[in-house]
This record gives sequence, C-alpha cells and structure tokens, in this order.
Amino acid sequence: MPDVGLLLPGVPEGLADDVALVRAMLAVEVAWSRTLVSTGRADAASAARVAEVADALAAEPAGFAAELAAASAATGNPVIALVARLRAEAGDPHAAAVHTGLTSQDVVDTALVLVTRDAAHDTRDGLHRARVALTRLARTHRETPALARTLAQAAAPTTFGARFAGWLQGVAEAEDRLAGVAFPVAWGGAAGTLESVPGDRLDVLRPWAAGLGLAETVAPWHTTRAPVLRIGGAFAEVCAALGTITSDVLAAARPGVEELGEPAGAGRGASSAMPFKRNPVASVLIRRSALVAPHALAQLHTAAGLAVDERPDGAWHAEWPALRELARHAASASALAAELLEGLEVHPDAAARLLAAHPEVGDDPGAAVALVDRALESYGADA
Amino acid sequence: MPDVGLLLPGVPEGLADDVALVRAMLAVEVAWSRTLVSTGRADAASAARVAEVADALAAEPAGFAAELAAASAATGNPVIALVARLRAEAGDPHAAAVHTGLTSQDVVDTALVLVTRDAAHDTRDGLHRARVALTRLARTHRETPALARTLAQAAAPTTFGARFAGWLQGVAEAEDRLAGVAFPVAWGGAAGTLESVPGDRLDVLRPWAAGLGLAETVAPWHTTRAPVLRIGGAFAEVCAALGTITSDVLAAARPGVEELGEPAGAGRGASSAMPFKRNPVASVLIRRSALVAPHALAQLHTAAGLAVDERPDGAWHAEWPALRELARHAASASALAAELLEGLEVHPDAAARLLAAHPEVGDDPGAAVALVDRALESYGADA
Amino acid sequence: MPDVGLLLPGVPEGLADDVALVRAMLAVEVAWSRTLVSTGRADAASAARVAEVADALAAEPAGFAAELAAASAATGNPVIALVARLRAEAGDPHAAAVHTGLTSQDVVDTALVLVTRDAAHDTRDGLHRARVALTRLARTHRETPALARTLAQAAAPTTFGARFAGWLQGVAEAEDRLAGVAFPVAWGGAAGTLESVPGDRLDVLRPWAAGLGLAETVAPWHTTRAPVLRIGGAFAEVCAALGTITSDVLAAARPGVEELGEPAGAGRGASSAMPFKRNPVASVLIRRSALVAPHALAQLHTAAGLAVDERPDGAWHAEWPALRELARHAASASALAAELLEGLEVHPDAAARLLAAHPEVGDDPGAAVALVDRALESYGADA
Amino acid sequence: MPDVGLLLPGVPEGLADDVALVRAMLAVEVAWSRTLVSTGRADAASAARVAEVADALAAEPAGFAAELAAASAATGNPVIALVARLRAEAGDPHAAAVHTGLTSQDVVDTALVLVTRDAAHDTRDGLHRARVALTRLARTHRETPALARTLAQAAAPTTFGARFAGWLQGVAEAEDRLAGVAFPVAWGGAAGTLESVPGDRLDVLRPWAAGLGLAETVAPWHTTRAPVLRIGGAFAEVCAALGTITSDVLAAARPGVEELGEPAGAGRGASSAMPFKRNPVASVLIRRSALVAPHALAQLHTAAGLAVDERPDGAWHAEWPALRELARHAASASALAAELLEGLEVHPDAAARLLAAHPEVGDDPGAAVALVDRALESYGADA
Repeated sequence: MPDVGLLLPGVPEGLADDVALVRAMLAVEVAWSRTLVSTGRADAASAARVAEVADALAAEPAGFAAELAAASAATGNPVIALVARLRAEAGDPHAAAVHTGLTSQDVVDTALVLVTRDAAHDTRDGLHRARVALTRLARTHRETPALARTLAQAAAPTTFGARFAGWLQGVAEAEDRLAGVAFPVAWGGAAGTLESVPGDRLDVLRPWAAGLGLAETVAPWHTTRAPVLRIGGAFAEVCAALGTITSDVLAAARPGVEELGEPAGAGRGASSAMPFKRNPVASVLIRRSALVAPHALAQLHTAAGLAVDERPDGAWHAEWPALRELARHAASASALAAELLEGLEVHPDAAARLLAAHPEVGDDPGAAVALVDRALESYGADA
Repeated sequence: MPDVGLLLPGVPEGLADDVALVRAMLAVEVAWSRTLVSTGRADAASAARVAEVADALAAEPAGFAAELAAASAATGNPVIALVARLRAEAGDPHAAAVHTGLTSQDVVDTALVLVTRDAAHDTRDGLHRARVALTRLARTHRETPALARTLAQAAAPTTFGARFAGWLQGVAEAEDRLAGVAFPVAWGGAAGTLESVPGDRLDVLRPWAAGLGLAETVAPWHTTRAPVLRIGGAFAEVCAALGTITSDVLAAARPGVEELGEPAGAGRGASSAMPFKRNPVASVLIRRSALVAPHALAQLHTAAGLAVDERPDGAWHAEWPALRELARHAASASALAAELLEGLEVHPDAAARLLAAHPEVGDDPGAAVALVDRALESYGADA
Repeated sequence: MPDVGLLLPGVPEGLADDVALVRAMLAVEVAWSRTLVSTGRADAASAARVAEVADALAAEPAGFAAELAAASAATGNPVIALVARLRAEAGDPHAAAVHTGLTSQDVVDTALVLVTRDAAHDTRDGLHRARVALTRLARTHRETPALARTLAQAAAPTTFGARFAGWLQGVAEAEDRLAGVAFPVAWGGAAGTLESVPGDRLDVLRPWAAGLGLAETVAPWHTTRAPVLRIGGAFAEVCAALGTITSDVLAAARPGVEELGEPAGAGRGASSAMPFKRNPVASVLIRRSALVAPHALAQLHTAAGLAVDERPDGAWHAEWPALRELARHAASASALAAELLEGLEVHPDAAARLLAAHPEVGDDPGAAVALVDRALESYGADA
Repeated sequence: MPDVGLLLPGVPEGLADDVALVRAMLAVEVAWSRTLVSTGRADAASAARVAEVADALAAEPAGFAAELAAASAATGNPVIALVARLRAEAGDPHAAAVHTGLTSQDVVDTALVLVTRDAAHDTRDGLHRARVALTRLARTHRETPALARTLAQAAAPTTFGARFAGWLQGVAEAEDRLAGVAFPVAWGGAAGTLESVPGDRLDVLRPWAAGLGLAETVAPWHTTRAPVLRIGGAFAEVCAALGTITSDVLAAARPGVEELGEPAGAGRGASSAMPFKRNPVASVLIRRSALVAPHALAQLHTAAGLAVDERPDGAWHAEWPALRELARHAASASALAAELLEGLEVHPDAAARLLAAHPEVGDDPGAAVALVDRALESYGADA
C-alpha cells in the first residue's frame, strides 16, 4: 500500500511522510533512553546501544515502515511493533532502556509534533519568500491603477499595490501565528501518571523535552488536545491566507480579465488534451489546499472534544491523518505560493482597459497608496 | 420567522441574538458619526441627532430587526435598510453624517466583533467559574484513588484529582487563548480604500476603533479573515476543552460506573416518559456544543480561503451564522460547565469498587498527586 | 432571543422556523392521541379534547414557543414543557391520552421530519421552476457560441446551451434525489421498545404513520440515523447543484467577462456605499448556501456515528440545528435559483468577443448541440 | 514519499492505493483505445499495442506511480505523464490511439470510480458478513435481558437482541444504500463537448462505459458532481452505521459495565506499556473511521458547489483524497466490523447485574422481542 503522492500533486517528497514519521519515532525513543540515562535510570551503554539500533533502522526506513504499518492493524498503532523490534535488536540488558515509562501515545504524539515542526519550518520559509515577493510587488505597483471588485462586480478604483498589500497582510499574519505556536513533547505514560517511571518521575520531563528541542506542558495532554488544535489551526490559517491569494489570481487570470498571470515554466501547466493551453497549476493546487484544510481542522476539533478518560478511544486515531494533512498542505501551499508570487505576471494594460470600461466607478483610488505604505511598514520583508 | 431558541436549549436569551446585532449595528453607526465629527468631517449636532435616532430604534429593536431581515433578501445584508432608516429619521442635514465612508461590510463585521466580544466576556466568566470549581475539586480529591482508563479499558490507578487537574489544564488553556484574541474594528469602505471618506482618510481609523473600544489592524480585513478565524478558533477550543470534560462525566455517570454525577436541581433533567429518570442535561448540552463547533469553524476557514477581490461574493455571508454559532456555543457551554462543576457529585466508593474489580492494574498512582500540585500551581484559581 | 433572520437573508419567513416546529410538535401529539383512539387505547373524546387544546396553542404560537424554549434549558428539549402544558389544558381524564407511550425523541424527530418534508416540497417547487427556466434557456441558446473554460482558462468553443444543459443535469438529478427520500415517523418510546404503550404495542405504528402521512421504518431509528442522513444529504446535493450554477454566473458576470447577468429588480442588489452598483444578490446568497450546507451535513454524519445506547447523549441534540439549516438553505437556494434563472441575462456578444480574443481554441463546438438535445430529452421540463 | 499506511491502521494493503489507481488509469486508457477501435476510429492493432504497453506498466506499478506523482507537481495531475509514457512506448502509428478525445479529468475520475467500485464491493462483503453475524446474535439473544440506556442513564429493560436488531437495521440500510449507488464512466473530453473525438462523437459513450462495466450519464459530469457525492455519501453512511455499533461496544465494554467484549486474538489489542491489557482495537479503529468520514464528505460537497466553468479550478483536485479516504474507511471499517461481530463476547450476567442495580426501570422489555423478529424478517441474512 505505498502511496507515492499520486493524489497529492505539489506536496514535496519526504514532507511528513511515513518514513519521516518512522525516523521521528526512532528519535523519540532514543531521546527517551538518553533521558533515562541522564536521570540515573539507565546506563549510558544502553542508550548508546539503542541509538545504534535506531540509526540502523532509520537508515533503511521503507521496509521497516511497511512492517510497522502491517503490525499496527492488530494493535491500533505502530509503536508496539517498533518497541518490540528495538528491544529485540538492543538485546539484554539494554532492552530495559527502551520505552520503559512511555506509552504509545507519547511516541506517536511526539513524533507527529517533530514532523509538524519540520513542516512548520518549511512553511515559514515559503511564507517568508512570499512576503519578500509581495513586498516587491506592492512597491512596484504601489500606484498602478486597478479595478476593485466587490461581490464580483466593478466597485471602485484601487491600485494593484493595495491588492498586494492585502495579500501581504494575510501572509504575514499567518506567518506570525505559526511562529507563535508551541511544539510540546508528549508525556504521561500509560495513564497520564508516569507510573512506570521509577523514582521521582517528574524529573524526566525537562531533560526529555530539552533533548528533542521541544516545549514542556504543565500536565500531560493525552486528552487535553490544545497543542494539536493550535498547530493545526495555524496551518489552516496559512492555507486560508494563501487561498484568498489564489482566489484572486484565478479570477484575475480569466479570459476577458487577464490582469494577472502565473509564471510560465518548462512543462508547467501542460494539458493532456490541449497543447496550446497553460494551466495555472500553482494557483489550482493552492486553492485545493485551502479547500482541504478546513475539514482536516474540523476533524481535529471533533476529536479533541471527544477525548475521553486518560487516553481516548478512537478520537486520537482520527487526529493523525488530519494533522499530517494540514502540515503537508500548509508547507506545499506556501512553497507553491512563493513560486507563484516570485514570478507573478502583472498586466497594467488589462487593468486599465477594465477601468476604462467601467467609468461609473470614477477615478479616485482613495487611500490605496497610503495603505500600501502602511502595510509595507508593518509587514514588508526583503530577501 | 422569529426563532426563540427552540433548537438551542441552554443558550441564554439575548446572547448574540438578532436584537443584540441590531443594537451593535446601531452602535457602530453612531460611533462612525462621532468619528466624522472628531476628525472634522461633520458637525457635533449631526452626531447627536444620529445617536438620538439610534437610541430610539434600539429601544424597540424587535420590530426593527424584523424589518431589516425582510429587506435584506433583496440586498443581501441588513445594512442598506438600516442606513436608509437612520438617514430618513435623522433628516437633512444630519443624514450626511450617517454611514458616509463606510460600507455594509464594515458595519456587519464590526457589529459581529462587538457581539462576539461580549460573548467572549461571558465565556471567560464561565471558564473562570469552572477553573475555581476545578481548583477546589482537584485539591479535595488530590489523593482520592480512581481507575484510569485508556481506550475505554482499565489501565492503571490514578486519582480523581489528577483527572480534574487534566480538565483544569484544558479550561485554563482555552481561557488563555480566548484572552489573547484581538477584537478589531472593520474598516476600508466600499472597496478597501476608504474612497468615500473626505480628506486624509486614514486618520479616521484610530478614533473609530477607540470609540468602540476595539483594536486596529494594519490594513482592512474585508478579505483577510484572520480576525474571524482567530475569534472562531478560540471559541472552538473552548467547546473542545469542555467537550472532553463532559465526555468524561457522561462515561463516569453511566450505570455500572457511577463515579461522577451531575448536580441535581428542581426540574433539571426531567424526562417526558420516565418520571424516575434524571438526565445529565448540562453534560449533554455541552457535548452537543463540542459536536457543533468544529463544523462552524470549518465553515469560517472555508469562507476565508475563498474571500476574493476587494470583498467576497458569498463567502462572507457564509461566515455570519457560523461565527455567531461559535459564540453562542462557547458562552453557553462555559456557563453550563461552571454550573456542572460547581455541583459535581464525586463518588469515591464507586471508584474504589472499580479499582478492586481490576487488581491487574496494581495500586501505584504514579505521579498523580505531584501532577495535581503542578497543575494547581500554574492554573489554580480561587473565587 | 427571537432571531428574525438577520443573518439569513433570503430564507423565506416561516420556513422551518420555531413556530413551524411548535405546530409540528402539536400535530404529532394530536396524531398520537388519535392513534391511541383508533387502536382502542383511548376515547375519541380525549383525542378531540387534545386536538382542541393543540389548536388553541397553535393559533398563538410565538409566546408558546418562547415558553418551551425557556423551559428546555433545564430538560434539554422542548417536549417536556409541551406535554405538561397539553396535559394541564386537556385536564382529566383526557390528559392520559397525551403523549402516553411516546418519548421526547419521537416528538422532536417526527416534528423535524414534518418540517423538513415541507421544506423539501418547497425545494422541489423551486427546482422545478429552475428546470423549466433551464429548459427554455438551453433551447434558446442551443447553438449560441460561448468560450469553454477549464482551470479558469480558455479551453475550447462550446455553446451557452451546453452550459445550461449541464446545469439542468445538476438540478434535475438533485430534484430526483430529493424525490426519492423517505420521510419516516419516529417511534420507539423511551427506550426503543414502546414499553409504555399498553397491549400489543406494534399495532400503533401503521396508523400513526398514516395519520401524519409519513413512512414507516422496520425498527425505531433513535440511534440508527439513516433517515436523517438521507434527508440532509439530499438537501446538501441541492445546494451543491445550485452552487455550481452560481459559481458560473458569478464568474461570467465579472467585469471583463459579462456574458451573463442577474435579472434586475426594484431595490434588488442595492449597495450601501455605491449607488451605481447592482450586486448579484441571488447568486451570492445561493453560493453562501452552497458553502454552509457541507458543514451542516458533516455535523449530521458526525452525530450519527456517535449515536449510542438506546438514545444518544448529545449527538442527537447536535443534529437539530444542522438539519433545519440544510432544509432552510435548500429551500431558499432553490427559490432564489428559480428567480435567477427565470430572468437570467445572456449576452452572446460578450461571448463572441471572448471567443474572438482566443483564436487558439479553434471554432469546433464538438458535440455541444447534440448534448443539449440529449439533456433536454432526459431532463427538460415545461411549465 | 511512499506512505505505507502508518497512520491508517486497519486499512487493508492494496485498498484504493496509488498502485490501484495507476492500474485503473491504465485500464481506462486501454478501454478507450478499444472504444476508438470498436467505433471505427482506430485499428485493432493499435489497441492491442496499447494494451500490451499498459500491461507492462501495470506489472511494475510502484516505480511508475512514483514517476507520475513526481511529474504531477508541474501539471497538476498524473495523467499528462501517463499519456506521454503510453504514447512513447506504443510508438507510431499506435500512439494516436492513446487518449485521443479524452482529457485528464476523464481518466482520473473514471479511475477513481473504478477504484471506489472495488472498495464498495469489499465494503458490501464486510457488511454482509456483519449482517450474518448480527442475525445470529439477534436470534441468540432475542430474549436476553439488558438495561436500555438513554442520555447515558438507566432507562428501561430491553433485550440484547433488540440492541443487535437496531445495529442490524443500520448495517442493512447502509448496505442497501451502497447497493443503489451508480458508478458511472466520466466523459466529455477537454471541455465537455468531446471536441477531439472525430466524427459523430456521442457514439463512443456506450461502448466505453460497457467496456469498463460502468454506468452512463446523460451529460458529462465534469462540474455536475452528483456521482461523487452519492458514492461518497454512501460510504459515509456505512461509517456512521458502524460507528454507532462501536459507540455501543466501547460503552458496554467499559470497566463496571462489561456487558460486551471484543473477540480476543493473538497479538490483538496489545499495549506498549501494559502487558495485561487488551485494547478493543477493532472498535477503536471503526470509531476512528466514523470520525473521519463526515469531514471527507463535507470536502466533497464543498468542492461540488464550487465546480465552475467546464472543468473546475482546484475544487476537483480537493475531491481526490477525500473520495479515496471515504472508500478506504468504509471498506476497512466494514471488514473490522465483520470480525468484531463474528466474535463479539456477550455477557448476560453483567447485564443482569446492571438491571438488578436499577430496579426503578421495572422489568417490562416492551416490544423488544417482537422488534427482533420484525428486524430479522426484513434484514436477517444467513451465510
């Protein structure tokens, strides 16, 4: 059942994929072994052995991922088989330093946090590139006249710069929100009480989180899913902010409008039936992400409200694909948006033609130029 | 078509209802007239007259609301009729101080922000009461043994206090998120350029926002819907955090478990067919809100990604009921949760019986007590 | 808390509103009393008295609805107070013929079925009018050249008729799906076993369903929510089919395209800020419905999968507003679509201009005309 | 980016995966070539050559799938690269019989229909097995007393048989709905007019649909997405019907209730932290599917309402993963449900204990037994 992304065009290879998850789970187990060592609960030799075994498994991840996937049908998640393999390969006495004190939810949740943190990093890169491109576009077209449309009808004069400044606000705000999201380590053990950790227990939290470069939380979040909602919500805002840009690009590139155009590229936008045609592929795929993300977010929220007992009975499992989907769409949409905006074609003549055809709107662009300046001051970015 | 809340049991009367919206829209128009005065664009007498007219309309809001609703079928929103009425009643020359420079989206968006800000206030009140109640519960039952359950099965010993501390984390985090949300004024006029505002234009923003006690934004947000997503997202997190509490209460109050019980009250929980039965109405209604909120949030996100041009063509209209729904459910769920938690019945004997029936889980509550203390230190609240 | 539709422009007054629901609940109770009579469980005089009391309450429904709404906060649904009032007014010995053997879920579910059946009737009226209009449009413009667009770009020649024929397929299929939906009576009593019905019990089903003109089901559907999913799904398909029409109209009416236009009307489409502007209000409101319906449907499906025990603990309550929302949006969208299509402005000259500007697409409309004929043969309708 | 199902435990290998899609797309192209032959538009030798080439590609699908996925980033879908490869390998003059007259949407949509038809077949197998198991369970426990619960509280006596009969209704109705869904061929070519098909054009539809064993539609459905909504809706109803079963099983297997239990199996339900524990994995995974499906369905409906022009600009792309997700969840949930129900453990003693603890509900199971008989008559199935 290897899915290679056939139904997810535009999502970069390696982004939050099963291999990335396997490697993240292995990293989580290694960090835990080291925590057991640093808190005096295991020998350094054991942690070293666990790391060695994990490295070997991470080096050939595809087969191992498939093995874990197959085993998870019987256990409901991939951790049981992963731990069994790590323990078997580590051998006695090192096996005791594997997973002791953790539960599968600690491992899957932390691995998803690691993978989504990477995707957030990629996403912010894309958003930053988009901001730089928009800064340039807004400056260049600060005063270029364009026809504002409301409810899809001619409304008033504006400038291209003002439209780009609006996009810039959306991108910068989404970047800001994503920057503020915490990526915490999951912890709590089988029932949220760390009961299998020998000794003082709570002392493990700080070194473990630090070892993975993740944040701490006050209490375990097995059923307190704010971290998931916030990560997912920030990704979804990214998709929405980029969605509004492509809603505009697609409308403005329509036959008869043709104010804006996607950048051309070799093979880009080819049609299977119409050789003359160049499809606005980046816009279409970003729009796709903006239509997918809201539902994935709703899935996270539904699951969060149903999280029951000390660890949930299905709601948790419903989160995994939704959270990954959000990470993938945000990261791919921001990369596509950067590319789109860096090469966006702007046609002032087409805009002038539209304005001329709608004299009823007058010729006063209002505060358009002042708004460009104001947006650039707050949100502008140079490479 | 007056809906009196028949399908929304538990939502307090007056909460974000049509009358509240009419009053908010009138307040918005009055504040705008005053802004025109304070920035030298209108006479004080005009603003006074507009306020007088608005007060009169706000005093008998039901009929006026119905009038606006009826008129909105032809115009798509209630503002056109509201402005017409205000202008007609204000009379010349004062009519020129009504709405000049605004567009209907400025009015509806700002009114929704005002109404959701009020709902956020109510919601935070309810959450604070819930935190106080949970602080007490966690302290009282810090060491009371209980059976932790994972995937709906017996898992390990814990304490009631640890469970309550988990709930407390969810409530406090949701309260914190809601406290951090900005409630901005909407502005931009017909096409986001303030083109109908005479003179310098941007000078109106500060006094207008200040007059309403709302935040400013860098650029208009007619199609940059982050403010709506963030308000809605915070409400949805509230519903999720309270949903997990009631998922627990409902499971723990089941026949055979009976560890927890809703507080009794006169008439509370009556059944139409079974006189002996007392239904856990507060839990059921909160759970309902947790199942509704995710879809309303998805609607906001879908709309945001489709916001096109200088003002959107239907996506905006799809936001209104969803945003109101989120406000209503968050506010009513938090009030119900406060009531539920203030009177929650805890039955340690039932928990002891469950623990005794599951000796395989052992008797070590792990770090349960330390976790209670840790949560109380961060999140505890007294009345 | 009377909501008069301020946030639901275009939804006709009286459509599935609280008053309609109160009347439907009263009709349900009356039909039940008559069933008790016809199956020998009550006296005709009692049923007559119940009908009399119900008629009086139905005649002044607004206050009664508000009373029920207020009472439902404590009981979770409006039926307990409704039954209490009916029994009190009927007096002894007639009170025993009120509700005996029913549960609140029987009453609310059946009332929602009655109200959605009415909405389905209205919806089918609107769809039929739309079909008639589309039949005429497709015939008239069978051969009128137009520019086909795919991925928002110029693709090939087609005819307006072919586009209208596509819309016709969507409308006719949605109408067909709605026509095939069953509207069943809810039954089962407090726990799905009719335990409070004296005697043979199952004999009540047939007369009760017949008395209300509703379908029967094999077993009670308190937690088997297929009927709700199917009614809701059909409404959602209506909204989607009409959504695609307005997506097209809005795109085709944009400045620079202007192939199609909404019918003008007095006051229709007025703007609060731009006197010269005419907004495509019907399209915008239909699009709004197409963006709302999917989330309401998801809410129904989420609730259905969570229906637990013999009657659910919150999932049921989450269905009510979602089902009503779907009914309202489908009925209002179909009425608006009928109006839109009956007066749709078609501008062949604009289409010719677009075709001329895109000579790369050639001049062969393919099977466009044959497809019009084929669609008309299957789906065409005359007034 | 090969995803091996790590986040989708319980979804059988090969079910609607990328390899299945590649094979389906190849089958679609082969059937089209044969249609060109049978309608006199190509030589039999060409179709034979295309079939040969397609067979070779289908024999080693993984690498080919990855190649198509990589190429689709630039074109937005995998068909352009697939056609290029087929044409290159077929060589002149056979290449002309590849894809001529089709568009990429014809291929992807038809391939998705083929793959979902297979998943529907698997789903119906699982549902039938579930029906057989439920028939046996309902018969066996026709009169076994159990405690009915409503709003999660003790409500009335019933029988296990009545509960199983309710589940049976849900399963049988879902099976029935799925059986009634049409799986049509997609057609229409680049712009819905078959413009690249030489000659009479419409004559290709019948043989092509017949060649793939698919249904015809009156007009192309590039933007009339009822077929997708109906396939997806039927899958979602399956997930909901099975969700209600597992909501019941999970509640009934809780500590203190323990009326029902999942069948045990080797390795089944193992915990990574608690060796003594057996998790109800099948129920948990089915519940997961019931929580995922509603959002995927909403995504389809959102996309349908936004389908614009002659082929949509992103809405179509948003459908693919959602439709596949629904197919996978329905098929896996029904297989898991069959397994769960075939081995379900029923504990009448636990039910008797609960009844005894709640004497207030009395001892009259009402029409429970008659309802079992009635359900079995309509829905019962033997192996």
